[in-house]
Amino acid sequence: MAAAAEQGVGAERKEKKEEEEEQVVNPWEVSAGKGGIDYDKLVDQFGCQRIDDALVDRIARLTGRPPHCFLRRGLFFAHRDLNELLDLYEKGEKFYLYTGRGPSSEALHLGHLIPFMFTKYLQEAFKVPLVIQLTDDEKFLWKNLTVQESKRLARENAKDIIACGFDIERTFIFSDFSYVGGAFYENMMQVARCVTMNKAIGIFGFNLEDHIGKVSFPPVQAVPSFPSSFPHLFAGKDQLRCLIPCAIDQDPYFRMTRDVAPRIGYQKPSLIESRFFPALQGENTKMSASDANSAIYVTDSAKEIKTKVNKYAFSGGQDSIELHRKLGANLDVDVPIKYLNFFLEDDDELAHIKKEYKEGRMLTGEVKQRLIAVLSEIVARHQRARAQVTEEMVDAFMAVRPLPNMFG
Amino acid sequence: MAAAAEQGVGAERKEKKEEEEEQVVNPWEVSAGKGGIDYDKLVDQFGCQRIDDALVDRIARLTGRPPHCFLRRGLFFAHRDLNELLDLYEKGEKFYLYTGRGPSSEALHLGHLIPFMFTKYLQEAFKVPLVIQLTDDEKFLWKNLTVQESKRLARENAKDIIACGFDIERTFIFSDFSYVGGAFYENMMQVARCVTMNKAIGIFGFNLEDHIGKVSFPPVQAVPSFPSSFPHLFAGKDQLRCLIPCAIDQDPYFRMTRDVAPRIGYQKPSLIESRFFPALQGENTKMSASDANSAIYVTDSAKEIKTKVNKYAFSGGQDSIELHRKLGANLDVDVPIKYLNFFLEDDDELAHIKKEYKEGRMLTGEVKQRLIAVLSEIVARHQRARAQVTEEMVDAFMAVRPLPNMFG
Repeated sequence: MAAAAEQGVGAERKEKKEEEEEQVVNPWEVSAGKGGIDYDKLVDQFGCQRIDDALVDRIARLTGRPPHCFLRRGLFFAHRDLNELLDLYEKGEKFYLYTGRGPSSEALHLGHLIPFMFTKYLQEAFKVPLVIQLTDDEKFLWKNLTVQESKRLARENAKDIIACGFDIERTFIFSDFSYVGGAFYENMMQVARCVTMNKAIGIFGFNLEDHIGKVSFPPVQAVPSFPSSFPHLFAGKDQLRCLIPCAIDQDPYFRMTRDVAPRIGYQKPSLIESRFFPALQGENTKMSASDANSAIYVTDSAKEIKTKVNKYAFSGGQDSIELHRKLGANLDVDVPIKYLNFFLEDDDELAHIKKEYKEGRMLTGEVKQRLIAVLSEIVARHQRARAQVTEEMVDAFMAVRPLPNMFG
Repeated sequence: MAAAAEQGVGAERKEKKEEEEEQVVNPWEVSAGKGGIDYDKLVDQFGCQRIDDALVDRIARLTGRPPHCFLRRGLFFAHRDLNELLDLYEKGEKFYLYTGRGPSSEALHLGHLIPFMFTKYLQEAFKVPLVIQLTDDEKFLWKNLTVQESKRLARENAKDIIACGFDIERTFIFSDFSYVGGAFYENMMQVARCVTMNKAIGIFGFNLEDHIGKVSFPPVQAVPSFPSSFPHLFAGKDQLRCLIPCAIDQDPYFRMTRDVAPRIGYQKPSLIESRFFPALQGENTKMSASDANSAIYVTDSAKEIKTKVNKYAFSGGQDSIELHRKLGANLDVDVPIKYLNFFLEDDDELAHIKKEYKEGRMLTGEVKQRLIAVLSEIVARHQRARAQVTEEMVDAFMAVRPLPNMFG
């Protein structure tokens, strides 16, 4: 119901917004119109498919476990050729997972964890290998960093990724500065030969005053989609399928990849794509590395989390208690509810909070209190896990090695 | 005198030619105006410097041996910052040599040997290490080749290069598909970040319908100019100077490289640049891989050499013996004389032939006969040397290894 109402408003808004400002979503810029990101429009614009209940059920059935809450709550909401991949899986043909991160900052925020938490679930549920790309070259090219600093950040970020609990028997983490070369570089050149500059400009919005590093980069993010880029893992399995969990802003890379794949004799990767994790200030704003108060970081203390949520998390509640009791909260814009939607695993409790809050029986402060508890637990758990990650473990995950039991 | 006359004609021609057709010289296209390549114009246009007698004498003095005939005959005729490099060499600071080849064909022709013959002389004369880049990635990107075929051609060409007699104690040969990665890739990204697409288009003449592989490539050819791209050779010697012997069509790469170098904390490479080796049909035509009769190949038999020279080498002699005896040959367009200029080492004999031919006492047939003998000997010697090159030797030259006595 709420969704239907939202769509109604959305339809009206759409026309108006197009006159006002166009939403921009690409790997380097996510800027919404006034009403937040219009995901329906994005799906149509990008030409990907929506994830419906039937597909969620199918994943549950195939994996023999309940779907991840990101999936059953529509946070991973779009895909490309996921059904085709599952058809093959059902027939016994395995696939591998590929995800990644651009290591632009020392500490990750909660939004950064989303694809990794979800990928971990997929890895466990499907029992498949995983490659994780750290695009330290990209961050060197886009940010004012030295090579050394980019490489250091990649390694620091690898620790946070490892702390998410990936299975070392099935996971290969690599940074581009360390791994580019050999079969990987050959595939980069294969892709590069298939994409004109005009095409790259069209897909990624480059301009001619951009440096050539930018236009050289898309093949680097494309080729982990191809198993032959990892001869130590997938030798002789050139047609193995690949599934890429990512936020939808990465779609342009994989639209390009899927366009090129059949021209160089490879399979198109399938995708499963998420919404964006909102900033504390709401969906119209962006989590910003330069504004520590726009996000909860995995390094934040319990006290910092409490302060940030209480002080900055945008509330959909009413201005006075009296009015709130009468009108209830607007859940569509309420950030604590959005965050709980991601991180409160108990469906019943979530539904209960939403109902009580929406109908004015629960106050923003109470919802925030619950959120603080949930986030503090997640962050504390992450911090404990990360403290256990040694340099040797990083070396072990990043070692170029076979994974003999990766499909086991 | 002949030179003065040529310049006179050249000056007149220049104006006319600019109306008719502009000469184009870049790494992928060399097309002359009607009067052949105007090297003076090229030097001015590119902004490099001429090699004069004083510089040739200086090299002779510093190396304690007579200058190579390519040098004393002005075939290597232009340079960038060679004096500065020699100043440092004189003070005891060594440098390294960098040259390369795009492996686009199975067999090399004589023109391909020029930079390698000259580089071998420089290596011996200065006692310095040498890196040789085989741009199999470039040929993959520009030609309709598979990765495998490009790599195979690189290895075949390496055999011809080794046959030129390089010292394995001082020479590292690498192909991009094998070697790109690590410090080399880091430097590629450093360079790429400093060159805008507009700049690359200006230097190399790319257009927006070209694929992105092309605009990605210049950093690959740039970074062997920087010692840090070879940590197994030059660790801790980041400021070691580099001298690049090459044909002048490669100048755009190194103009770009020299522009970028100080911005990333590296030394600009110095260059020593040659004229083009003419096709058998004359300087206005091009040696073409698709026309076996336009060049002498190192795989040609003595009989083929004889046939090609007699049948195709453009003669500056007169139409009849009577006229020739009276007017003599026009040496400026005579291909046998141009070839002898490259390959007949004896200065006195060359001067004698030129004089006799120019004054009509020697006939084209006689000059060609001498040329056939000279080329047959060079080609036979090359074939004998190449037959000795084993796969193990190729592996040894291409092994990523330290060269402990490379300055010895």
